Amino acid sequence: MRFDHVGVATRDAAGLADSFSGLLDAPVAHEETFEGMRVVFLELDGGGHFELLEPVADGTIRDYLEREGPGIHHVALATEDLPAALDRAREFGVDLVDEEPRLGAWGHEVAFLHPRSTGGVLVEFVEK
Amino acid sequence: MRFDHVGVATRDAAGLADSFSGLLDAPVAHEETFEGMRVVFLELDGGGHFELLEPVADGTIRDYLEREGPGIHHVALATEDLPAALDRAREFGVDLVDEEPRLGAWGHEVAFLHPRSTGGVLVEFVEK
Repeated sequence: MRFDHVGVATRDAAGLADSFSGLLDAPVAHEETFEGMRVVFLELDGGGHFELLEPVADGTIRDYLEREGPGIHHVALATEDLPAALDRAREFGVDLVDEEPRLGAWGHEVAFLHPRSTGGVLVEFVEK
Repeated sequence: MRFDHVGVATRDAAGLADSFSGLLDAPVAHEETFEGMRVVFLELDGGGHFELLEPVADGTIRDYLEREGPGIHHVALATEDLPAALDRAREFGVDLVDEEPRLGAWGHEVAFLHPRSTGGVLVEFVEK
């Protein structure tokens, strides 16, 4: 289990990508529109990413921005065996947002844990 | 500039450390009391950390918990030249919380950028 990316909710993914790519020397590695969001991945040295999430339709990120404002939305950890990681989370009594792996951005398999089980931290597991 | 750690504000660092270390296979790497906070670092594969921050006195983390509740507080990026990273941030017009490097937890040199300049994300630069 290793750091994969930090997800950031924003109303201006292109502007924040410009700012972060220069400030942090983190070029754009991937862009797509996925499930009502404009998604931009910026790549840092060492292979970690920022995932910028801008809503282009109603959905969880638009709701989040209205409720919380822009900022860090989640942290994603990479695993080589997502079903096993979810089994382990169940053994630890963690409530899961996704009981099974589902398709996430950039074609990755993902599943989210509920923040009420993880100290208020929205954790995403990702398998590439 | 690479991912170093995600800082998490919590009212129970020991409990969250127990939970995360088992769930994420991230053992405790360092603990200390620093500037009115109980600080616990958990180490993930690949060398990234979670930094759990529990207030034991009045200060910014206690204020944050009262205002926002527990959850992700900041993201820290490691640099090999913190003064140069701060100069670069100034060139990009970023407002700095810390104009100069200061001593942070675990004996590292740190400086925070103001989230109003970084899309609502509290960014810490750290030099080890």
